[in-house]
Amino acid sequence: MSGGSWSSWLREQAQRRESLGLRRSLHVRGATEPVLDLAGNDYLGLARHPAVVGAAAEALHTWGAGAGASRLVTGSLGVHAELESDLAAFLGQPAALVLSSGYAANLAAITALADRECLVVSDAHVHASLVDAIRLSRAEVAIVPHNDVAAVSRALSKADGRRALVVAESVYSVRGDAAPLTELAAVCTAYDALLVVDEAHGLGVAGAAGAGLVRDHGLAGRPEVLVTVTLSKALGSQGGAVLGSLELRDHLVNRARPFIYDTGLAPAAAGAARAALRIAATEPDRRRLLYDRISALAAALDVPAPAGAVLSVEMPSPQAAVEAQTSAREQGVLVGCFRPPSVPDGISRLRVTANAGHDDGDWAHAQSVVVQVAKEQLGA
Amino acid sequence: MSGGSWSSWLREQAQRRESLGLRRSLHVRGATEPVLDLAGNDYLGLARHPAVVGAAAEALHTWGAGAGASRLVTGSLGVHAELESDLAAFLGQPAALVLSSGYAANLAAITALADRECLVVSDAHVHASLVDAIRLSRAEVAIVPHNDVAAVSRALSKADGRRALVVAESVYSVRGDAAPLTELAAVCTAYDALLVVDEAHGLGVAGAAGAGLVRDHGLAGRPEVLVTVTLSKALGSQGGAVLGSLELRDHLVNRARPFIYDTGLAPAAAGAARAALRIAATEPDRRRLLYDRISALAAALDVPAPAGAVLSVEMPSPQAAVEAQTSAREQGVLVGCFRPPSVPDGISRLRVTANAGHDDGDWAHAQSVVVQVAKEQLGA
Repeated sequence: MSGGSWSSWLREQAQRRESLGLRRSLHVRGATEPVLDLAGNDYLGLARHPAVVGAAAEALHTWGAGAGASRLVTGSLGVHAELESDLAAFLGQPAALVLSSGYAANLAAITALADRECLVVSDAHVHASLVDAIRLSRAEVAIVPHNDVAAVSRALSKADGRRALVVAESVYSVRGDAAPLTELAAVCTAYDALLVVDEAHGLGVAGAAGAGLVRDHGLAGRPEVLVTVTLSKALGSQGGAVLGSLELRDHLVNRARPFIYDTGLAPAAAGAARAALRIAATEPDRRRLLYDRISALAAALDVPAPAGAVLSVEMPSPQAAVEAQTSAREQGVLVGCFRPPSVPDGISRLRVTANAGHDDGDWAHAQSVVVQVAKEQLGA
Repeated sequence: MSGGSWSSWLREQAQRRESLGLRRSLHVRGATEPVLDLAGNDYLGLARHPAVVGAAAEALHTWGAGAGASRLVTGSLGVHAELESDLAAFLGQPAALVLSSGYAANLAAITALADRECLVVSDAHVHASLVDAIRLSRAEVAIVPHNDVAAVSRALSKADGRRALVVAESVYSVRGDAAPLTELAAVCTAYDALLVVDEAHGLGVAGAAGAGLVRDHGLAGRPEVLVTVTLSKALGSQGGAVLGSLELRDHLVNRARPFIYDTGLAPAAAGAARAALRIAATEPDRRRLLYDRISALAAALDVPAPAGAVLSVEMPSPQAAVEAQTSAREQGVLVGCFRPPSVPDGISRLRVTANAGHDDGDWAHAQSVVVQVAKEQLGA
């Protein structure tokens, strides 16, 4: 930075982070490390599955390393259309539109629909990509307490004839709990509002068939319910998608700037996601193993079993959360740690994810380490 | 959509597009089609280059199909660090941070630096991703006429002690012309402002070594100049990066929400970009061929030779632009077409890109088609 204001501003910002103990840095992983990852989102263990890697390689050799252009110019490839068809079928939706990330999918869905003339009612715990999307849309936003359907209803009653959107996640990324989708959909129907459900942590994991909670609740294909997903969690790849009616898809193609002004998803990522979807649909044992693991861990920690593969363990303080995370890492187990200001309710948490790809011995070791480090901090 | 307001709004929007002749739809490409693509951005013809595809496959097999988590959790892989090191070296910058798209890189750079207390001075022709980034930052924005350094200076004189950012592209994506970077940097130094240069269409193409115009102008590594790039154009892959000082990188890691809340770039895309960078650095003949082609085409059309691989051909009307594009497509040549409202100055244009991957005979045919369809509309 120059000698002037930018330089001193960056320095001040860095010093402030340092003094608050909030400095974050990147830890680069090697390709083979003797650590067990209970922090990532590759829930079904598919990122390195031979069929997924093989399908990615096939798409790469067929279509090349990149799409070469925006989807609207010459970057819509057959593999995108096939993936969209597969996603729509699996999730029980009329149509899907694939983007280069889940963040981009949320930005595209919200900004193409909401504008200054809209009211957006958002759960307080939705993901940062949804928060940014709402901000970018310039709609008025009402933030309501977590999973509080009555508060959503009260907020919608003040829409005063404006188009209104309600924003939720099916399985919340940090808390790991589920949204009351049936009740939210009913309120949306009553107020003529659109319900946007981010299934980032539901796809491949939640619901009887792993097709997410919107389908499980009989809401898939309902015109007042729109779904977004990511391909980078249970599907082990990269990318995102928006699912809903054909009219909605056509609208996004024409109006969603994060779609229009981005290069199409890399063919390898699209191919990998297709193979992962097939495995998610045809190998329910992976999902069962995941639930057995996360339920056993929840029981051992005396916390409620989660709706998906994410277990949230409240810690008494930010320091306790960091100490538990550090202690686990020293024993070869990586877990997530969320502290203020990243949590809207000020409660520090360990975020532990199950992974169906770990072998039984590794998982048993990981579970015992997580239970030990958490109980140390909880004084139990 | 529900029977109510959303449904009728979507219908109205679609009817409005239809009646204005502005409806856009996706054309899905097959893997092998007898068309010549002069609309995409794979300028060096690297997306299907065997070394690029091979490096992508190697990264895919080594690291898996996806990064599995945010870069800040467990999604920072060795291949990301290697790519960042390669990009920084090639562009002459102290540090690089890789993201999942060029759109994300621009969003990350601007929103991590600018806030309500900032002034952003933006060229009227910058890419939509920069426009969205500025909007999301909530900074006050002053939009200045294209390449008007005096207007930038006047706008900066009204910063009133606020931190100020100037936003430009090195090679403009639709017009194909270059920014006056030396003059812009001098104005930024004078006003203690930061210059953000998007090298999306410069990387691999522009400058003596293909390392972009910032390096070519001796501005690389200058603390008051920050660079963003995409990996999805000349490098034939997917992803984006922000380049600048180590302090800047550390700041983005801690504050850039589009980086923090996104899964890391897919390993295959990172591996492909590394191989493409090596080719861009060691095979200058590709770049020479590109310039020979685009310069010959510009001469045949009697328009100025562009700064990069993008040739902009003004059309007398939106209808003329569409007719020229359609006529070219019927002869097996795809060109881009930009009409209002996608162009800030209301001028409809054909956007024609050169590609070093086409063989000589194909290129000769493509050039003759483009010249013919353009001249038909220009009445020449």
